[in-house]
Amino acid sequence: MNVPALDALTGALSKLPGVGSRSAARMAMKLASEPTRLIAPLLAALEETREHVRFCTRCGAFTDVGYNPCRLCTDPSRDGRLLCVVEDPGDMQTIEETGTFRGRYHALMGKISPMRGDGPNDIRLRELVRRVREEGVVEVVLALNTDLESESTAGFVTALLRERGVKVTRLAYGIPAGSGIRYTDAVTLERALAGRQEV
Amino acid sequence: MNVPALDALTGALSKLPGVGSRSAARMAMKLASEPTRLIAPLLAALEETREHVRFCTRCGAFTDVGYNPCRLCTDPSRDGRLLCVVEDPGDMQTIEETGTFRGRYHALMGKISPMRGDGPNDIRLRELVRRVREEGVVEVVLALNTDLESESTAGFVTALLRERGVKVTRLAYGIPAGSGIRYTDAVTLERALAGRQEV
Repeated sequence: MNVPALDALTGALSKLPGVGSRSAARMAMKLASEPTRLIAPLLAALEETREHVRFCTRCGAFTDVGYNPCRLCTDPSRDGRLLCVVEDPGDMQTIEETGTFRGRYHALMGKISPMRGDGPNDIRLRELVRRVREEGVVEVVLALNTDLESESTAGFVTALLRERGVKVTRLAYGIPAGSGIRYTDAVTLERALAGRQEV
Repeated sequence: MNVPALDALTGALSKLPGVGSRSAARMAMKLASEPTRLIAPLLAALEETREHVRFCTRCGAFTDVGYNPCRLCTDPSRDGRLLCVVEDPGDMQTIEETGTFRGRYHALMGKISPMRGDGPNDIRLRELVRRVREEGVVEVVLALNTDLESESTAGFVTALLRERGVKVTRLAYGIPAGSGIRYTDAVTLERALAGRQEV
């Protein structure tokens, strides 16, 4: 575009998840068109995020720098015997939005991925084992993704925790709500059949 | 999320074009996860954009504050007799990318939209008439969108310029490349038929 600042802005935006180069360019032009309405609040929020947002050193959730452990970890109304293991803080947020889980969380911050060279020591497994031991956890609920690497991470975590005598459960496999049999893949159907429940 | 900075960042990002609240939240979490790699360059680019990016006062394109009129307006290799009228600078960019237009541009910065209360005085029409008069423009190529308001804006611009004796053309209507007859709507087909060309 021959406007270096716009090109730099397009480049910085296109590193964000789900943002391709064309949509980054569109965002950059919109920002440049309305600096007061769009750039000023974004600058302030970015600076605020850099200064104030941290990962909770206990569960891995996003938290304000003034709350570590985070509010959820220290909330006495949450059941500390029930620990939900997720891959990242975003998943934690998604589960929280359902409003049905009353335990605490632990984010692994990734998964075991031989492809990317991430082994068991590259995710927060040691921390998980320590929490299970120290916090009186009775049941660990695995809420990992269902791709191959996540599944094998789940297997690894299960073995690790079982030998320490803690109960390990995982989210049910099945047909997603609002979907139809004919749109469901074979693997999911097979698992839904195997996990069929009496009505 | 109970992390005010992240909520503010999500809010600021969701004002960008094509960004819904869920994707804004995903972006915000990604930014918070990697402040050095993601926040720092974005902050720098936003500040740079705010300081350095302006609209060219002649054609309406984005330009560096040090180049006004913009590089394209002052490029002697461009044909000043041919002026392409677009709605906004982004459209200009899209046409430039084809590399086939050798004239200059004029962005209206909007369209006549009774719905939004934008009349002829709210877009850069006076500037267009003045440029046509002062810059020796022989042909104005309208490259406006094809929704109803854009079409009626095109009609208004055409009448305005014709009475000043300048030739007005518009981009051809027709079937987009890479598409098929069965995916083309009736209005487009009718226009493509009317504009059929001998082969």
